[in-house]
Amino acid sequence: MADRDYLQYDNERIDDLQIKGRRIIQKTDGFCFGMDAVLLSDYARVKAGSRVVDLCSGTGIVPILLEAKYPVGHVEGLEYFPEYVEMAGRSIRMNRQEDKVSMREGDVKEARRLFAADSADYVTCNPPYMTENHGLINPDFQKAAARHELLCSFGDVADAARWILRQGGHFILVHRPFRLAEIIYELKQRKLEPKRMRLVYPYVDKEPNMVLLDCVNGGRQRMTVDPPLIVYNKDGSYTPDILKIYHLDGDNNTT
Amino acid sequence: MADRDYLQYDNERIDDLQIKGRRIIQKTDGFCFGMDAVLLSDYARVKAGSRVVDLCSGTGIVPILLEAKYPVGHVEGLEYFPEYVEMAGRSIRMNRQEDKVSMREGDVKEARRLFAADSADYVTCNPPYMTENHGLINPDFQKAAARHELLCSFGDVADAARWILRQGGHFILVHRPFRLAEIIYELKQRKLEPKRMRLVYPYVDKEPNMVLLDCVNGGRQRMTVDPPLIVYNKDGSYTPDILKIYHLDGDNNTT
Repeated sequence: MADRDYLQYDNERIDDLQIKGRRIIQKTDGFCFGMDAVLLSDYARVKAGSRVVDLCSGTGIVPILLEAKYPVGHVEGLEYFPEYVEMAGRSIRMNRQEDKVSMREGDVKEARRLFAADSADYVTCNPPYMTENHGLINPDFQKAAARHELLCSFGDVADAARWILRQGGHFILVHRPFRLAEIIYELKQRKLEPKRMRLVYPYVDKEPNMVLLDCVNGGRQRMTVDPPLIVYNKDGSYTPDILKIYHLDGDNNTT
Repeated sequence: MADRDYLQYDNERIDDLQIKGRRIIQKTDGFCFGMDAVLLSDYARVKAGSRVVDLCSGTGIVPILLEAKYPVGHVEGLEYFPEYVEMAGRSIRMNRQEDKVSMREGDVKEARRLFAADSADYVTCNPPYMTENHGLINPDFQKAAARHELLCSFGDVADAARWILRQGGHFILVHRPFRLAEIIYELKQRKLEPKRMRLVYPYVDKEPNMVLLDCVNGGRQRMTVDPPLIVYNKDGSYTPDILKIYHLDGDNNTT
């Protein structure tokens, strides 16, 4: 099957993920994945054979990257919009990842109906960052829902993670630092104990614009804050840390 | 009065604080202030005329530095050990800060008896960092109490800050990053909303070893995470940010 056969609509394109030849179908005029999803996948450190659920999965970027990076048992992505679920399904087939990766259509708020309790070792999520009070809401509802908490709040996401995860399982997420205090509070209320945190600073002298968190369901209090992840050198080129995460540091990860 | 007249015991020394000629008396074999107190004072950004209470005040380093750095109305330090209260009193007299700085002997857990409610614009604290489960406890009880939560827990400190602060007043503290999630949770339970946070990294590629927090009593949810504060250049010299905070960057702050 030729690559173009996986594209069903004029407004779609295929992007190379720079790892093991994996690619993803995205809409040219819709939500496209960003550095957030790449850093989240890298931060997850999924152990061999694990069962993973990715919430707010969109085009399936995180499940696709997790399978490429780790010897997972199975990764299932949950996505609200049927259009993205179908598109992610085509990406998975294109990558021949059907044995390891699947997508499910559904609402995060319905997690108790959709998933068995304690059924996953990891839950990942790159959720909408903004509350309805933050900034302009995109008139395109799909785009708006990827950015704003229109379909689910952070509490809904944390509730779902708590339900799906086994005791000792990991909830790994990326979010905006301006919501850090609120997020930590919501997580701890649900016994999702933050154990690792990394702040992502665009430049060494700038405010961070992302935070990565690794929480353990029922974990003990005590966390590690990682060294800063700085994205750009002063001259605007990527730092060695970022080149490594994007597999652009000379290591050969393609098959 | 000669400097040495302020020293009453053989095991005492006077250290220059590098700002407006202010100095501090410390015990050569007791707890001595560290970078924590200097960074805390710098982070506080106290407005002119404000009423400030410093908890767990020890030798009075934070009140003395706050008066030197800002046109405060009044700073009062609360300290448990009478010996430190007396020593801090001599430092304050030596610096001729009696009009602006005072010390009170007392227990943080007694804050409701010691202070009027809503009576301060700022509360600062450089509390003991370790719980009783963390690391070796110093056999010298005074030193142990400066490092371990033997006399008060973080919850006790937060309770006191909440009581003393007016609505909209600031609670500024320094702590260890490994307790960040717990601290944010305790603060938010008391409506002390984290509004600014800065992580202090010894080197750009190392884990942070301090976190500075500025919380507003009754503040709205939404915070700023500041650029990283990096202490040392790769060659082990201080970074410009640290030289500035220590007034060693060429600006003349001595009188």
